[in-house]
This record gives sequence, structure tokens and C-alpha cells, in this order.
Amino acid sequence: MAQYPIAVLVGSLRRDSFNRKLASAMVQLAPPDFTFTQLQIGDLPLYNQDDDASPAESVKRLKAEIQAAKGLLFVTAEYNRSISGVLKNAIDHASRPYGQSAWTGKPAGILGASVGAIGTALAQQHLRNILAYLDVPTMGPPEAFVQAKEGLFDGSGNIGDGSRKFMQDWMDQYVAWVKKISP
Amino acid sequence: MAQYPIAVLVGSLRRDSFNRKLASAMVQLAPPDFTFTQLQIGDLPLYNQDDDASPAESVKRLKAEIQAAKGLLFVTAEYNRSISGVLKNAIDHASRPYGQSAWTGKPAGILGASVGAIGTALAQQHLRNILAYLDVPTMGPPEAFVQAKEGLFDGSGNIGDGSRKFMQDWMDQYVAWVKKISP
Amino acid sequence: MAQYPIAVLVGSLRRDSFNRKLASAMVQLAPPDFTFTQLQIGDLPLYNQDDDASPAESVKRLKAEIQAAKGLLFVTAEYNRSISGVLKNAIDHASRPYGQSAWTGKPAGILGASVGAIGTALAQQHLRNILAYLDVPTMGPPEAFVQAKEGLFDGSGNIGDGSRKFMQDWMDQYVAWVKKISP
Amino acid sequence: MAQYPIAVLVGSLRRDSFNRKLASAMVQLAPPDFTFTQLQIGDLPLYNQDDDASPAESVKRLKAEIQAAKGLLFVTAEYNRSISGVLKNAIDHASRPYGQSAWTGKPAGILGASVGAIGTALAQQHLRNILAYLDVPTMGPPEAFVQAKEGLFDGSGNIGDGSRKFMQDWMDQYVAWVKKISP
Repeated sequence: MAQYPIAVLVGSLRRDSFNRKLASAMVQLAPPDFTFTQLQIGDLPLYNQDDDASPAESVKRLKAEIQAAKGLLFVTAEYNRSISGVLKNAIDHASRPYGQSAWTGKPAGILGASVGAIGTALAQQHLRNILAYLDVPTMGPPEAFVQAKEGLFDGSGNIGDGSRKFMQDWMDQYVAWVKKISP
Repeated sequence: MAQYPIAVLVGSLRRDSFNRKLASAMVQLAPPDFTFTQLQIGDLPLYNQDDDASPAESVKRLKAEIQAAKGLLFVTAEYNRSISGVLKNAIDHASRPYGQSAWTGKPAGILGASVGAIGTALAQQHLRNILAYLDVPTMGPPEAFVQAKEGLFDGSGNIGDGSRKFMQDWMDQYVAWVKKISP
Repeated sequence: MAQYPIAVLVGSLRRDSFNRKLASAMVQLAPPDFTFTQLQIGDLPLYNQDDDASPAESVKRLKAEIQAAKGLLFVTAEYNRSISGVLKNAIDHASRPYGQSAWTGKPAGILGASVGAIGTALAQQHLRNILAYLDVPTMGPPEAFVQAKEGLFDGSGNIGDGSRKFMQDWMDQYVAWVKKISP
Repeated sequence: MAQYPIAVLVGSLRRDSFNRKLASAMVQLAPPDFTFTQLQIGDLPLYNQDDDASPAESVKRLKAEIQAAKGLLFVTAEYNRSISGVLKNAIDHASRPYGQSAWTGKPAGILGASVGAIGTALAQQHLRNILAYLDVPTMGPPEAFVQAKEGLFDGSGNIGDGSRKFMQDWMDQYVAWVKKISP
């Protein structure tokens, strides 16, 4: 059976990040041929084009992990109505040097949780602009603007009953999207 | 005479950054009551909310420099159709902890240069969204989507003749904007 | 006492539009030197540059009403994650012919209500991009992403108790913004 | 041989619209199994939700034409840093009533020309946001931010030599995208 390794990028470094928990919980809703790995982005240097010729080990690792994946899952926080600088820095690193982007052609889905009612809607809009440029075909609806509130997760860290159906539907469509786009 | 110290944020760490040169050249077009300081953002850690209680020295320095300024000048690169992760990381740091943003109410202007024809237009659009949220009243036109090409600077690093009039007009309007908005 | 006539643009033509009701309710929170007029945009033709030399009466009326105002209030619906075509058409008309825009320099505020949780956040982001280009200095926070739900209005059509304090604060800041920017 | 009828939406009503000419010229670069029809959007009424139950004939025609297509081609002007109200009005009409959108699942490509250097980059960004919500899988690169200048078309109205290779490549990728996504 074909396997679909998915690279997961979480847009917040906070230890108890809602988005990290959301990423972990979503994995439970995926079929067995999909495997998910959260990529480490907190040890990357700030991107500086002068380093393109001699990238840090953490940068080489990030690019290799993305290249090995058949799909991408972005679980983004919203900082100041956009994606975090942390996530953008990772995106910038893996897109360079010019002509050697690791992102090209990888199908993606976007999720995001925040405590506010708009639930990362504005961050996701910026992320979609960026991914379109990077030739990352990104699933449209269902949009997942998740409000981080009590009951989102159950006691075991899985998606709680109130959101289960929506999230399972999201995952089913994501799986279909990756299979359609992935070469 | 009232003095207007301006904090300048350049969105690229590259040593020979066009945007850094542009920032330096624009200073020559300003009146004597405006002084400009390029803030260092390349030594900031990646933002992590867990560090809010014990920020790094570089973060404290950045916030103090912004708070001391009467205006802001963003000279942004465009990376992947948005601002750089480096610049967004600096914006995130100075906006936190919640309720203690250093940006609030500071008038701003946006410039940006790139080698491509669209000249950072898309990065500037994202930056405007972010600044609106941060309560940074940002000057509208004239938009400065600068294409980085021969003749932009003269041999002394000043704005070249072909762009001088446009850039002087930009600066004059920026000065008026800062004086109007700054308390 | 100086008077501040405000031109109000409502982004939905629906008779029972939440945004129209919101526009009407907000007026009650304004001081006596501010007067509000909802502009008619439903009788405009679709914008066609070929008609610039001989604009329809409805277009001439719209431009005159905007020019007579000292401030703008946009109360926008969200259609398909942007402003409505109806509102954009009105904006396009009043911006033309080239060099004869009626919008230039008028201070603005943005409100918007929708039944969804994100409450026009994405429409407002597009509108801010457009207004920045049109040289319309637009108030930043407080953002008003209003969810249209029971209790938003009281029995008399005024803002209900649950939202009164937020909306009064919004209006107070809007009034200060218009007075600061308006020549 | 399977046939791919494509619905073309041009974002400007001007008789001598560059974008209309661009749409016509692009057709010459397509393979014989692709046929293109420019949809009429200039006779649509302004969208009003109150009319959902009894849509105008022009609205019914627009929706039927979109539903009959296997792909979409947007050739957009940029008005005030977004798509035209005229185009947005057409998008709004064909998306309603709620649950009966004609757009769902149709693969799309975006082109746009303007006299300015940024060549509709900002309009295209807004259009991508809108199409993502409408479940219209939209091709990413190559971006076509076309500057409308002498030589863009040859004497017969075809794409001129200077842009031919880029535009042929765009069309080839568009054709592959439609075939991949279309059911």
C-alpha cells in the first residue's frame, strides 16, 4: 500500500500550544496509510541570504524532511493578524536558495486555533497567499478557523465530541486532496 | 525645536541588502528635526510566548528603542509574497506580552525594494494588515514599490536622479504624517 | 460649533440587512456634532470606464455626497471572504476618472456584522487594502468584527446592553479619529 | 476525445479592455480540446439577497454557463488594488443562494494585465482569497502579472513575440491543471 508521510508545521513554539495539541489530535483521525511528523522549527537561525551557500544543519534537516514528505499540514497560530514570524522564518528557509525550494508541488492543508472568535482566519489568508506563490496546492474548504475553548479536546487529548464530526470530515477531505495532487 | 526620532526596521539581514541601502539613502532626504536609527533585529531569538516573563536583552532593547521613537519607518523586503520571517519575528516580539505592545499609536511609513517588477507590493499589503491591528497609523499613498535596479542609488549611496523627485515627495509626506499623528 | 457630516456606506442591499441596522444603531451613540447619511448605492450602474466622460446621475450624486462629507463610515457585509461587489462597485465609481477621486483624505472607520463567527474579518482586511490605496486614513483598533446574533439590538433597534459598552467605545474613538484627521 | 469547455471571466467592461484582448489572445495558445467562452457580466443587476428566490435571466444564464464549464479562466483588471466591483458582483451572483454555488470544484487559472508595473498582483491576491473560499482549486505559479505595454500583442491580436514563450508555458500548465483537477 502506498504510504503518505506528511510534514506537520506548527506555528507556535509555546510548550502548551493549542495548535501543537490540535496537530497531535488530528493525527488520530487519519487513515493508517498517512503518517505525520511535526517538524522542529524552533532551532532554526533567522534567515539571512548571506548564509545560502553554507546553511545550518537545522536548515538542511528541515529541507530534507519536507522533501521526503508527500504532503504538508500547517497548523498555524495567529500573531498580530498574520502567521507567526517563527513559521514564516521556516517557510523562508525551506524556499531558498532561489530555484531550490523544498515546497514545490507538495499538497497542503491549513488548520489553526486561537482563543479569539475569528480563530486564525486572517493568518490563514496570508498563509494561503504565500503557499500559492510557492506552488503548494492548498485545499480550500472546509475552512478550519478553530476557537480554542473548553471541550475542544477530551481528557485523552483527542478531538472532543462537539468538534469530532467537523474535524473528521476535514481530515477525510484532506486525505483525498493529498492523494489527488501528490505525484 | 521638537525632535522626531524615527525607528527604522529593515526586513532583510543580508549585508548588501537593497532595503538597508534604501533606508540609509532616504535619511538624506529628511529635514533636520528628523533623526533615524536602524534597529538591530538579527540578534533576536525566535519568539516563544513561554519567554514573555523573562525576555532576552535584545528583546528589551528593541522594545525600548521603539518606545523612544516618535515614528516608524519600515523598509521591507518581500520574501515569498509576504514580509520576511525576520521582520515578522521582530514585530511579534515588540507586540508582547499581551497589553504591553511597544507599537501602539506610533505613526509609520512603508517602503520596500525588490529586484522584481512588483517591488514588494504584496509584502507591503500584509504589513499594512498587521500594522492596522497593532494600532500603528500607517501613511497611505504615495506607495513606494521600488524596483531595485541600476541608477536607484548614485555613487555616494544617495537616491539617484531618476528617483529623487518621487522619493523626496514621499519623505515630505511622511514627515507631515508623523507630525500630524504623533502626540 | 464645527459640524461633522459623515457619509455611511452599507455593503448589502438586502432590505433587512444586519449591517444597515447596525449603521442606524451606531448613529445613536454619536455626539450631536456628528450627522450621518446612508448613501444610496443600489441604483448605480456597473462601472465601465467608457462612461467616465458622461457619468450617470446616480454616480454624480454619490461623488457629491462623499465630497461633502468630513468622514466615512463603512458598514460592510462579507460576501465570499471579501466585500460585496455592490460596495466595491460604489468604491470604484467614486474613485474615477483617474485623478478625480472623491475619497482622497477622508478619515474612515470600518464596522461589519455577519452571522458567522469571524464576523466580516476577512472582508474588512480587503477593504483596508483598498482604502489605503485611495488615501483614506482608516482607524485601526478597536476592530469591530460583529457577530449578528440575538440581543445585538434591543427592541427599539438600538445597540443592546451586551454590546453597548464596546460600541460606545468604538464610536468615541471614531469621533476622535475623524477630528484628528479631517482638515 | 474529452472536451474541456472553459468559462472566461474578464474583470473590465471597457470596450477596448486590455484584459479582454488578453483573454482573446490566450485562446490561440490552447490545445484543440479546450474551448473558451467569455461570459457576459455587464448586464447583471447588482446582487441583492432579496432576489435569491427570483433571479434575473442574466443571473440564471451566468450560473448555467459556469455549471457547464469544466474550468475557469479569470482575466482580471485591478481597480483600487482589488478586483473590480463588476467582477466581484458576478462572483457573488453565481455563488448564491447559499448552498447552490455554481463555482464549487471548478479548476481555475488567473491572468491579469494593467498599465502599472505591478500588473494586477494585488487584485489577484484578493481573487485567490475569494476562490479558495468558493472551493475553486486555483493554479499557483507561474504568476501572470502582465504589464500592458506596446508589443504585448502583435498586429493580429495574438500574444507578441516577447511574451509568447511565457504565455505558452502558462497555458500549458493551465491545461495540465484543469485536466488534473476536473472530475
